[in-house]
Amino acid sequence: MSRVWTAALVIIGDEILSGRTQDKNIAQIAQWLNVQGIRLKEVRVVADDEEAIVEAVNTLRARNDYLFTTGGIGPTHDDITVDAIAAALGVPVVIHPEAEAMLKAYYAKIGKEATPARMNMARVPEGADLIHNPVSGAPGIKVENIHVMAGIPHITAGMLEGLTGTLEGGKPLVSVTVGAFSPESEIADLLRAVLKEHPDVALGSYPFFKDGNYGSNFVIRSDDEGKATACAEALADGLREAGYDPKVGGL
Amino acid sequence: MSRVWTAALVIIGDEILSGRTQDKNIAQIAQWLNVQGIRLKEVRVVADDEEAIVEAVNTLRARNDYLFTTGGIGPTHDDITVDAIAAALGVPVVIHPEAEAMLKAYYAKIGKEATPARMNMARVPEGADLIHNPVSGAPGIKVENIHVMAGIPHITAGMLEGLTGTLEGGKPLVSVTVGAFSPESEIADLLRAVLKEHPDVALGSYPFFKDGNYGSNFVIRSDDEGKATACAEALADGLREAGYDPKVGGL
Repeated sequence: MSRVWTAALVIIGDEILSGRTQDKNIAQIAQWLNVQGIRLKEVRVVADDEEAIVEAVNTLRARNDYLFTTGGIGPTHDDITVDAIAAALGVPVVIHPEAEAMLKAYYAKIGKEATPARMNMARVPEGADLIHNPVSGAPGIKVENIHVMAGIPHITAGMLEGLTGTLEGGKPLVSVTVGAFSPESEIADLLRAVLKEHPDVALGSYPFFKDGNYGSNFVIRSDDEGKATACAEALADGLREAGYDPKVGGL
Repeated sequence: MSRVWTAALVIIGDEILSGRTQDKNIAQIAQWLNVQGIRLKEVRVVADDEEAIVEAVNTLRARNDYLFTTGGIGPTHDDITVDAIAAALGVPVVIHPEAEAMLKAYYAKIGKEATPARMNMARVPEGADLIHNPVSGAPGIKVENIHVMAGIPHITAGMLEGLTGTLEGGKPLVSVTVGAFSPESEIADLLRAVLKEHPDVALGSYPFFKDGNYGSNFVIRSDDEGKATACAEALADGLREAGYDPKVGGL
């Protein structure tokens, strides 16, 4: 079996914990990682609090190939991510000359002053490289195995696009979905039987309620497309035998 | 200052980590907790893996007043939450007689058989009480300070409704939002000055891009409505002086 590459994500933000903002970064980063052949293994959401950030960062960076963070890299008093990452790594915060030049050029272009608050966004943990931000000037930061991204989802999306193909990973994870209007409690035994015959795949069962009926999507994941497809076909056959009308691709 | 009551949330589910399902439980549980006078302090998303669940549950239940979990309480092979919580607590899994009776009555009513897979949903960690599920029969579980909820958001919503007012908490958290089309980098200094005059509130700055303009919502949180309002008024005054047109209530 090939090596499995893993990543963890630390979401930094009181706005998520207060329920004010609906997180969208978990799903978008997870999907992007799948394509890079890296699996998102665990996520933590922590407050804008240095101690909490340091604990999460140091635990998760040690046991995963990559760590991503989102949030807290803007110019205001609650943006403490850079200081917290530097504290986690035990390095000082320095001005990154390229970030400084980029920010000065960006604000000159849009006709705004490069205030000290704005130039705060050129601060990085010592030894860091920049992650290009095509959307709003302030770059992301790469230091050791940590990728520091924006909190605003469309800015993070732009940064991820620039990182595409730059991280070493394994084979992309393939997923095949089989959906049926079968309440999952009716086919729990079938699932166990299919999984016994196809031990190398992961099989998840995700119930839903749609058009007045209960059903489930069964998601088969593997880095071997042939194995995922074979399992999906066996499951679809079993669902047909049990009197359902399964749809490969999901419902 | 009054005691602050805290909660943590463990989201159990490969479907969130794979990016297949967009989480909606963090925001809905956070908002519900705010009304109960309890603050959501930290969240972890872990895989359908007993060891990962036990680690998260035992760390977070010890350092918070309440722990909530979502996901993994259905009838299929990947529903391992009950066993993992029992393992975390060091107690056996038992059949809860009331849950058994409820499930039998529910399936009789909808004309389905009470299969062994379905009756799995009557299994609870020893010593647990049930949390009523008005939507789909299978109850949630309350054991020590742990509340085990469904993964499907509208089922969790029903369970939360039943729990409303049953948990001891502090004063509800009040939040007042002031929005303005002011890029946050332009008013970072103003925010620091306002916060210095109003040290007892939390003040978050959440930038947005709307109708072609950058702006920010500034969210002031406190369990003292008067203090939150006073801070919001001071901030709105400062924004007006700086030439912006702030809206209390947010943009």
